[in-house]
Amino acid sequence: MNSPVAIRRAGRRSGNSGTREAILAAARGQFIATGFRGTTIRSVAKAAGVDPALVLHFFRTKDGLFVEAVRLPINPATPLREALERAPDSAGPALVEFLLEAWDSEDTNRTMLAIVRSAMTEEVASKMVREQIVGAVAQVLAACGIDQPEYRAALVATQMAGIVLGRYVVAIHALVEADRSEILAAFGPTIQRYLTGALHQEAGT
Amino acid sequence: MNSPVAIRRAGRRSGNSGTREAILAAARGQFIATGFRGTTIRSVAKAAGVDPALVLHFFRTKDGLFVEAVRLPINPATPLREALERAPDSAGPALVEFLLEAWDSEDTNRTMLAIVRSAMTEEVASKMVREQIVGAVAQVLAACGIDQPEYRAALVATQMAGIVLGRYVVAIHALVEADRSEILAAFGPTIQRYLTGALHQEAGT
Repeated sequence: MNSPVAIRRAGRRSGNSGTREAILAAARGQFIATGFRGTTIRSVAKAAGVDPALVLHFFRTKDGLFVEAVRLPINPATPLREALERAPDSAGPALVEFLLEAWDSEDTNRTMLAIVRSAMTEEVASKMVREQIVGAVAQVLAACGIDQPEYRAALVATQMAGIVLGRYVVAIHALVEADRSEILAAFGPTIQRYLTGALHQEAGT
Repeated sequence: MNSPVAIRRAGRRSGNSGTREAILAAARGQFIATGFRGTTIRSVAKAAGVDPALVLHFFRTKDGLFVEAVRLPINPATPLREALERAPDSAGPALVEFLLEAWDSEDTNRTMLAIVRSAMTEEVASKMVREQIVGAVAQVLAACGIDQPEYRAALVATQMAGIVLGRYVVAIHALVEADRSEILAAFGPTIQRYLTGALHQEAGT
């Protein structure tokens, strides 16, 4: 490990916040381009032109760096709250529309893809999804007085994640080809039921 | 590259099928334990006690090895066909039940997890999911005379994949804690609609 003196000498940037931002930008680029496992403290330090010890000084661990660098670019909680306040019976389709809008935008798509892929194997990314997406949706549902907010948020998350996987990750032909109105007609009622409908009715026999 | 003579000398096993099986067993173990990227032709060869050139001789590429080694341990097409023939109106819940049964079994869980994780980044695993799961379900639907079989199979896949992610991969608390009857009541009607219901009704406004 380098001493603090060595750290100061190795850092070519001056000013703490500038250096921190440079490290975050480098980390963000690498996490998105090569994934969690393909990114190391050392590779980020090199790209940012600083000593690896300085990265550890600011962020402590690779997990800490990931959380700060790869922030959630979209948060469904905001449009969900608006939809539930405006027209609760169409909050389902509104949420699907928001999802398509976000994922069809290239920048959001790349960042979210990095988060989703990392969430498959890394607890730090799983936790980000659980807390910042599912947890945030549950909070909105609770604030709107809807019963079983945690469970409903989880149900919504399964179908939203499935759309993402099918259309944007695994690229199932029929889903990639479907236009927005078809997607809305198929998934809107599902999300709507998970948000505000009856969950315990028995399935038809 | 080694010459064929070197291959023969390096292989400590005799008999083509025994060697092939040993390579497949080693590959299967490694793909499941360390994922697609963590597995190499060289590491599999070492574990099987053969020369890497022999692995390439049998399977040509790492993709080829993956497809042969990590076979789909479960195929929803079979229970789906039975359910559609027996009681089409409860095929949805039947499919959810099949999914839970399969993923709650440890062996199936580990293999499927390796496939699902690999499908997030590797085209060979994506293709396996598209063809062997979604494609097989579409074939069953088509054989039963159901309209839009490809699209319906894709819709079913999104919700099934979402359940897997939520309950078994990202481990959303409310879904992990839910008992089977709750899961069935929540997702059964969704899958049922995707399989046999109306897809183009507009969502309520």
